[in-house]
Amino acid sequence: KPTFDPKEHQHLRYNPLRDSWVLVSAHRMKRPWKGQVEKPPEDNTPRHDPNNPLCPGSVRANGEVNPEYDSTFMFDNDFPALQPDAPDPGISTVPFSQFRVVMCFHPWSDITLPLMQPAEIRKVIDKWADLIVELGAEYTWVQIFENKGAMMGCSNPHPHCQVWASNFLPNEAALAERCQRDFLQKHGEPLLVQYARMEAQAQERVVVENEHWLVVVPYWATWPFQTLLLPRRHVFRLPDLTAQERDSLASIMKRLLTKYDNLFEVSFPYSMGWHGAPTGSHLQEDMSHWQLHAHYYPPLLRSATIRKFMVGYEMLANEQRDLTPEQAADQLRKLGEEHYKMKKT
Amino acid sequence: KPTFDPKEHQHLRYNPLRDSWVLVSAHRMKRPWKGQVEKPPEDNTPRHDPNNPLCPGSVRANGEVNPEYDSTFMFDNDFPALQPDAPDPGISTVPFSQFRVVMCFHPWSDITLPLMQPAEIRKVIDKWADLIVELGAEYTWVQIFENKGAMMGCSNPHPHCQVWASNFLPNEAALAERCQRDFLQKHGEPLLVQYARMEAQAQERVVVENEHWLVVVPYWATWPFQTLLLPRRHVFRLPDLTAQERDSLASIMKRLLTKYDNLFEVSFPYSMGWHGAPTGSHLQEDMSHWQLHAHYYPPLLRSATIRKFMVGYEMLANEQRDLTPEQAADQLRKLGEEHYKMKKT
Ligand SMILES: O=P(O)(O)O[C@H]1O[C@H](CO)[C@@H](O)[C@H](O)[C@H]1O
Ligand SMILES: O=P(O)(O)O[C@H]1O[C@H](CO)[C@@H](O)[C@H](O)[C@H]1O
Repeated sequence: KPTFDPKEHQHLRYNPLRDSWVLVSAHRMKRPWKGQVEKPPEDNTPRHDPNNPLCPGSVRANGEVNPEYDSTFMFDNDFPALQPDAPDPGISTVPFSQFRVVMCFHPWSDITLPLMQPAEIRKVIDKWADLIVELGAEYTWVQIFENKGAMMGCSNPHPHCQVWASNFLPNEAALAERCQRDFLQKHGEPLLVQYARMEAQAQERVVVENEHWLVVVPYWATWPFQTLLLPRRHVFRLPDLTAQERDSLASIMKRLLTKYDNLFEVSFPYSMGWHGAPTGSHLQEDMSHWQLHAHYYPPLLRSATIRKFMVGYEMLANEQRDLTPEQAADQLRKLGEEHYKMKKT
Repeated sequence: KPTFDPKEHQHLRYNPLRDSWVLVSAHRMKRPWKGQVEKPPEDNTPRHDPNNPLCPGSVRANGEVNPEYDSTFMFDNDFPALQPDAPDPGISTVPFSQFRVVMCFHPWSDITLPLMQPAEIRKVIDKWADLIVELGAEYTWVQIFENKGAMMGCSNPHPHCQVWASNFLPNEAALAERCQRDFLQKHGEPLLVQYARMEAQAQERVVVENEHWLVVVPYWATWPFQTLLLPRRHVFRLPDLTAQERDSLASIMKRLLTKYDNLFEVSFPYSMGWHGAPTGSHLQEDMSHWQLHAHYYPPLLRSATIRKFMVGYEMLANEQRDLTPEQAADQLRKLGEEHYKMKKT
């Protein structure tokens, strides 16, 4: 019998953070590609478009005028899903309240996080932390997320993220809560604290690291170049980060996102988001099973125009990936940290 | 306080089949659309393309020549994820075996299920049932699924589905197993048998029905026009269907898929698949909590070129839909059952 080679032999990997399995079939990468070819992400966004409702000085759909902001800028979403006064719908449904914010990262439309200065990224991080404090005082879960690129349903090229706060624990949050709680109970150590230590030691799946942070392609990654961003210290929520840790986070985000863009020399599409200990009434509870982390879920697989589809088998049966997390980490690790756009100028 | 209106007031709905929640924010449909516009599905497929490896008489990648088939045609996938002899990969991963089949529905490339004759669809159903018997004798789970349309990662326009059999219960199968088992234990009746009766009575979410089958937009649907196809009788697996039930299934599939195509006058993309009681060693067990069913997951939202994206918030926090299941069912129900392509000729 041949010895096991994860690049050649299909196998299942357990995801302890979601209590589920991912199917790894790396040899599928050898197939010729005959599937859909995407439009490559556009690269001709003007720095300022007075008709773009996210730009400084623009008028938004509700008639409000944006300030001439020169750093980050936030507003409540003009089309909120929120109706805190929703009446009781009866037995089979549950009303909820949600508060939604859009946060612009920068006054320019033709810039993205990896092209911003570390000090500018640091301001985004500070605003994120502030929002967790503000909205977290009232809401159980404050989800910060960024959809980047048209491929990820992003309807506006201006660099921005969204923050949706809710008075309930969303499915994914409830799953992360349960899995981390069970792990601490069983193993006496928080799941992601132990995991970060193991990965830092093994190095096999590390993409970038610094004194305070570690980025890995997690052992259980489902998207081809999915990564997990972890603090080395045990941290519950974004506001708990020290000034030093925030600077260090700005730096590692810039490095990771530069590598992402360099992979296919294109502005890399992804959805990303932060998961930290629940807030609201949970602020008073023991949350030592929680470790702060960010997930990056990018869809591209082989090139700027060939993506992974999570369809048929994945939707009906089981998530499946076509290259190993170790192969993905290796590719990302080897990439330079100077942004390809900077080299060209 | 206003009375609750699911079209106006956001709410959460429980999905008893996946033990999770879906967030319904129907008022979001009022937003202007500024997101990505898809290429409409192509409509110029030649009936026969000698270079298409799924066509009668074509040579496949492994050198084999397809027969001049005139009904369905099956072959093992040329790029199998399967390695039944995968060696033991050690502690952290689990090897598995999987067997993969491609099944062509028809010799023509320019036809789809809704345009096929009921007798031709019936042959597909019979082959599906045969495969569950054959592969189910050995494998724990036999997943029949169809990815239709480039938008759903389908790499070949020739009408076909895939069947992936595995020696383990995939995540989604394990979830459906657990939820149905728990429900029967608690309520003394299989979940989907009770559910079908309720929906047939309420009519609110019914799309099409006949003597043996019912198609509803389930109460907990996440995709805009998602449907659930259910037998009225308690049936464990596809091979258990009588000849009459199979004819009746062919008829209701044709009606449902015609409505789908008529919705935006386009060949409607989707992923679909069958879930029935597990097989292999489970053939000997009591599976009375199981009810056979098929899921249809179509991505289109507003038109042939505007789709729903399951991205940021959905990936990181909670699935969310933008029109109510009742609205979706109503739209589908009102559509004619003559295919738009037939009218034009
Ligand atoms: O096997 P195919 O049709 O080449 O591939 C398609 O279906 C598979 C099963 O759902 C997915 O894993 C692939 O991402 C998708 O492109
Ligand atoms: O709010 P946006 O950017 O218009 O919408 C985008 O993100 C939302 C949250 O992930 C998704 O529900 C939408 O499908 C997507 O198009």
